[in-house]
Amino acid sequence: MGGPKLKLSLEEASRVAERVDFSKMGGLVPVVVQDAATGSVLMQAFMDREALIKTLTTGYMHYWSRSRRRLWMKGESSGSTQAVEEAWLDCDGDALLFKVVQRGQCCHEGFYTCFHNEVPSLLASAQGPSGAKDLRHGGSLGQGP
Amino acid sequence: MGGPKLKLSLEEASRVAERVDFSKMGGLVPVVVQDAATGSVLMQAFMDREALIKTLTTGYMHYWSRSRRRLWMKGESSGSTQAVEEAWLDCDGDALLFKVVQRGQCCHEGFYTCFHNEVPSLLASAQGPSGAKDLRHGGSLGQGP
Repeated sequence: MGGPKLKLSLEEASRVAERVDFSKMGGLVPVVVQDAATGSVLMQAFMDREALIKTLTTGYMHYWSRSRRRLWMKGESSGSTQAVEEAWLDCDGDALLFKVVQRGQCCHEGFYTCFHNEVPSLLASAQGPSGAKDLRHGGSLGQGP
Repeated sequence: MGGPKLKLSLEEASRVAERVDFSKMGGLVPVVVQDAATGSVLMQAFMDREALIKTLTTGYMHYWSRSRRRLWMKGESSGSTQAVEEAWLDCDGDALLFKVVQRGQCCHEGFYTCFHNEVPSLLASAQGPSGAKDLRHGGSLGQGP
């Protein structure tokens, strides 16, 4: 319940960032976020270099929001912060995995994980051909993986 | 050890694809792949609509390769196939999580998972300022998460 387990100096964080290939997505890398205790995958998001540096130096997950086009700290408004326990870079240097201690619920819809719509069960909940937008309110499947 | 647990008809798979928002990445969605037995995150990749349909109808993971610009089935050359156990769509409909049975090793470098470079340990293995490319041979950290 203490603070984050992983917290680097700016110099160390900058050296980590040098190892990350941001070029394939125009300055972003995909990030996978896993619950350190249960192993459940909580969410997938993106980081730019600044979000990565902020995450590594503060010990709390920061992302680049593609829709809002700005840096944000997870939980900055909801309180559902994510303290970093471990960080892993993949073989190609173009994806990151973070293991975190999630405070509260990860999903803004109140679910433990953002991945709460199972296939094919979600087919049964389809209410028409209107597509992805319906999922925002299709949460009856909700226990999470 | 049998075949995939999740395998849909083309009609069902097409209905799932309708729920996925491919628009944010010009026709692609990020995909997280998790070992169904251990919960370890094995890799992160991308799917276009065709890769998703192929995955859901065959029960084996298919991806869109950004570097080779083509559809590929995981294991098509290495034999390291991934049989689908579960598939989950996230709250926004713009990311997918698959739980799979991995045959052999996931990583083309011979590691169990592609996420085998831990921060900050990878700093110790840095051999210069040349960046991400070094990681392809920086595998001494290798047990995987």
